[in-house]
Amino acid sequence: MNERVLAGEIREKNIDQKVLLKGWVQKRRDLGGLIFIDLRDRSGVVQVVFNPDYSQDALEIAELVRSEYVIEVKGAVVRRDESTVNHLMETGMIEVFASDLKILNKSKTPPFAIKDKTDVSEDLRLKYRYIDLRRSPMQETFKLRHQTTQSVRNFLNDNGFLEMETPILTKSTPEGARDYLVPSRVHSGEFYALPQSPQLFKQLIMMSGFEKYYQIARCFRDEDLRADRQPEFTQIDIETSFMSSDEIMEMTEQMMKKIMKDIKGIDISLPLMRMPYDEAMQRFGSDKPDTRFDMELIHVSDVLENSAFKVFQGAISSGGKVCLLNVKGQAANYSRKDLDKLTDFVKVYDAKGLAWLKAEGNELKGPIAKFLTEEEIMGLVDRADASDGDLLLFVSDKTSIVYDSLGALRLKLGKELNLIDESKFNFLWITDWPLLEYDEDLGRYFAAHHPFTSPVEEDLDKLTIDPANVRANAYDLVLNGYELGGGSLRIYKKELQDQMFKVLGFSEEEANEQFGFLLEALEYGAPPHGGVALGLDRIIMLLSGRTNLRDTILFPKTASASDLLTDAPNEVSEAQLIELAIQLNEKNN
Amino acid sequence: MNERVLAGEIREKNIDQKVLLKGWVQKRRDLGGLIFIDLRDRSGVVQVVFNPDYSQDALEIAELVRSEYVIEVKGAVVRRDESTVNHLMETGMIEVFASDLKILNKSKTPPFAIKDKTDVSEDLRLKYRYIDLRRSPMQETFKLRHQTTQSVRNFLNDNGFLEMETPILTKSTPEGARDYLVPSRVHSGEFYALPQSPQLFKQLIMMSGFEKYYQIARCFRDEDLRADRQPEFTQIDIETSFMSSDEIMEMTEQMMKKIMKDIKGIDISLPLMRMPYDEAMQRFGSDKPDTRFDMELIHVSDVLENSAFKVFQGAISSGGKVCLLNVKGQAANYSRKDLDKLTDFVKVYDAKGLAWLKAEGNELKGPIAKFLTEEEIMGLVDRADASDGDLLLFVSDKTSIVYDSLGALRLKLGKELNLIDESKFNFLWITDWPLLEYDEDLGRYFAAHHPFTSPVEEDLDKLTIDPANVRANAYDLVLNGYELGGGSLRIYKKELQDQMFKVLGFSEEEANEQFGFLLEALEYGAPPHGGVALGLDRIIMLLSGRTNLRDTILFPKTASASDLLTDAPNEVSEAQLIELAIQLNEKNN
Repeated sequence: MNERVLAGEIREKNIDQKVLLKGWVQKRRDLGGLIFIDLRDRSGVVQVVFNPDYSQDALEIAELVRSEYVIEVKGAVVRRDESTVNHLMETGMIEVFASDLKILNKSKTPPFAIKDKTDVSEDLRLKYRYIDLRRSPMQETFKLRHQTTQSVRNFLNDNGFLEMETPILTKSTPEGARDYLVPSRVHSGEFYALPQSPQLFKQLIMMSGFEKYYQIARCFRDEDLRADRQPEFTQIDIETSFMSSDEIMEMTEQMMKKIMKDIKGIDISLPLMRMPYDEAMQRFGSDKPDTRFDMELIHVSDVLENSAFKVFQGAISSGGKVCLLNVKGQAANYSRKDLDKLTDFVKVYDAKGLAWLKAEGNELKGPIAKFLTEEEIMGLVDRADASDGDLLLFVSDKTSIVYDSLGALRLKLGKELNLIDESKFNFLWITDWPLLEYDEDLGRYFAAHHPFTSPVEEDLDKLTIDPANVRANAYDLVLNGYELGGGSLRIYKKELQDQMFKVLGFSEEEANEQFGFLLEALEYGAPPHGGVALGLDRIIMLLSGRTNLRDTILFPKTASASDLLTDAPNEVSEAQLIELAIQLNEKNN
Repeated sequence: MNERVLAGEIREKNIDQKVLLKGWVQKRRDLGGLIFIDLRDRSGVVQVVFNPDYSQDALEIAELVRSEYVIEVKGAVVRRDESTVNHLMETGMIEVFASDLKILNKSKTPPFAIKDKTDVSEDLRLKYRYIDLRRSPMQETFKLRHQTTQSVRNFLNDNGFLEMETPILTKSTPEGARDYLVPSRVHSGEFYALPQSPQLFKQLIMMSGFEKYYQIARCFRDEDLRADRQPEFTQIDIETSFMSSDEIMEMTEQMMKKIMKDIKGIDISLPLMRMPYDEAMQRFGSDKPDTRFDMELIHVSDVLENSAFKVFQGAISSGGKVCLLNVKGQAANYSRKDLDKLTDFVKVYDAKGLAWLKAEGNELKGPIAKFLTEEEIMGLVDRADASDGDLLLFVSDKTSIVYDSLGALRLKLGKELNLIDESKFNFLWITDWPLLEYDEDLGRYFAAHHPFTSPVEEDLDKLTIDPANVRANAYDLVLNGYELGGGSLRIYKKELQDQMFKVLGFSEEEANEQFGFLLEALEYGAPPHGGVALGLDRIIMLLSGRTNLRDTILFPKTASASDLLTDAPNEVSEAQLIELAIQLNEKNN
């Protein structure tokens, strides 16, 4: 009886065995001179009974025990009375009659109870993270995270990839998101940066001849946080040499197939659907469409291009468009007040308003109906396939605003109206991305992915004369409306990388200062290469059916990048700053 | 022929097959109108032959090709002529007759050749790391690193451990080594710290009820670098609940046994040898003894305590001691000049000098012989088991200096005299460590391991009255004279942790400010727990038979913590500093 037994694994086959248990007091009940303790460990819960006939000593110690005390119990496994069998517990057929009880550690009353559902504030859960993590759904999430990580590794190991570690203390290259900086003590006045991704290092690994690399890599972005962003996050980072984009996508699909099988027991069929970026925007108003439900954007600019309704006509004539969503059968369920709320919703996406019409018989009714001709009404009914009781919601604006606002409205309505089959896992590749995005405020092009993404070969001659229409050799993987990540073929010729930096507005000097090591490496036999990076935290979120990314990270930070448990970041001593040869700006002192 | 074949895997069974190869030009030779190219990829090298009879086009392109060009070859596998078979190459029975050749990328002449042995400076190798890494020994090292990591994971996964990720942006707790700091932009004036190890987080994971945790964890120490230190390094980090120190050591041994079997094909026998700290110091003058050879320290204070030789007698009477090494049979090989050099060597370890005697028959000869009595000589000969031709080397000083200097001298002589069997892997646990070390300059105790290490139960009452003699529940694992790492049981009771901080000179306020979250967590049902952490980089160094830690890290930093490849750290823009609300001290501007 020296070997500890796991509480949640005891079954009827163990009846009459003596067991040694160690764990936490989940619950204590006193009943008719007996004490019942639910003992919890990482495997689950078992009921322990303290009976004066069995051990008076153990019973007396059991009287001292409270929730979350850590205890050690010796006892015998017995079959429960028929009347006390608990079919909801995996160990509910048996209980343990205690002969010995030892209190290993006490506990104050926890700030909240260890139960599956909790309604305490997230801040309190984060401050007492070690208590929150004892709850079964949290335990399960991190077991799933462990299993997913191993599934990924097994797949990549079996396919000849080498797991390799790239540095965390790297060079600051301020293109893209904001770097976290680390002052150097030895080289005072200089800084390391934490990597936003291992992008350049994984390309250097290809130039080092390793051909197949992966890493479950920690990445850092000092961005203003949103609900689904963390200052540090983890990505499945992969790079290969000599593979085409099709081959990289196929490999990634095989990996996702294995994860889905290993973790969810689901067979997904390959190849995954592919959709060009333009099509995704036109049909779903999103570059990461949730394809678990329809309600696609309906384009009606041609129907309305001569409309007397100024709002429509104005948008079209100034180069924008009019699209609508047909919310099938919901006309009666949306009051003016509800529609005003939807209008407020699209305004967040810079839409000036949301026009609406309700289908009654063959007619469309609503405040804007009077501006529309018979022919336009017929055209809309026909295009939207509108039937009695349908609600049509219109946005007319610049194309990007029409897509953003209706894309977001589509998702909102899909959720509100329960149009989404939550059991589905809809994977989708978005391909044919634009290589560059023009920033009107700054008057220059930016890399849509990053400056190392390769243009597609047939668009190469447009790079200097028509950069906006150059497509990238890039692909993003979408699952249920979330971007899991993406990848691309990389530029591997020095001349093309030079040209790319030029298009991005870098002087030769700036390019060399920031990326000279890469440009030089491209001159020494860089192989064709490409890869992919997938967000592990988000994959775990979707696999575990959660909606909060913080529930998938063991010790996450808040939206203001604080760790409420350890109280990081914090002030440091003057001596530490002096060693680093930095000082705080006045306002901080 | 669309599937690429790996060059190093082609064998006689592939003769007559058509193959598609992609890789680097290792070597080009022109001979009698033919061109021979050694094509290298991650798998190895194969010889490709360009012959005008086979393809004039391919031959003409081959003429343009230089070392490290990246090429694509189509061809047929043929058996080599008897006379040209190369038994030193794994593919030496065959060659590939090329029908097509495509240059995928060019290369300038590399700064050094891609060959197994290189004598270029390490700085040049680090600057062109992507070229250095193409060399076969480097490729092999990182394959071995990959395999070792997977071996560790397989063992831990099979034993129920969960791989979990702890934060990199954490709280600065300036006990121990120097932290790398990261200024916070959102909370200006505050800093994150990069973790020196996941110590507190892994303890919190135990308090979260996970019971078995591991991580291949990146750690950071801003220390003055030595040859075997890097600012960022990787450790195999393990923590468990409810296990005794014996159980943790046994688990660690099983893991090392599996690594040795998987990677080196060597069966090591368990249990590994264990040695108390005091014994290691007394016998080997080291807390990480290399037990692959003898030449242990011989203690002769009792023999010499009344010696007329002032140096010996003074050391002993002031509480120090005299020890010697018997360098068997080497008396004739060490001249005065050699012995002077050994004296200089021990002086680095603060020894005042190195006395010596040479055994001739039953006598001991040397400059200090005249100060010794017949009885003392006989005592020394007897104790040292000295026979004709032996060289005895003495240090007399404070105990710590005697151990440090003779321990180092023993290692030096072991290497010089080839006493070490390099094929051996001698593992050893050092146990019974002191819990505390007294710093005479600062007049306070420091934690010998870290402040969370548990004292052994039977020494608990000494903690306040005799702290110097409290032993820790700690264990270090040593391999061939290198510390692989170590671990301990941790303090899991609040009162004991409070007491420990007190002994270390923390006020209650200081303890709460730095470690309040831990102290609070200890009050909510913290289980007994402990763990171990092993340095992965050093394990790889020893398994791959290397002596330079930098050869085991993909992109290492120099002794001054610089990355010569990317030129990190570097200066950052004023705008970045303004966002972080910090400025550089005057001298840097």
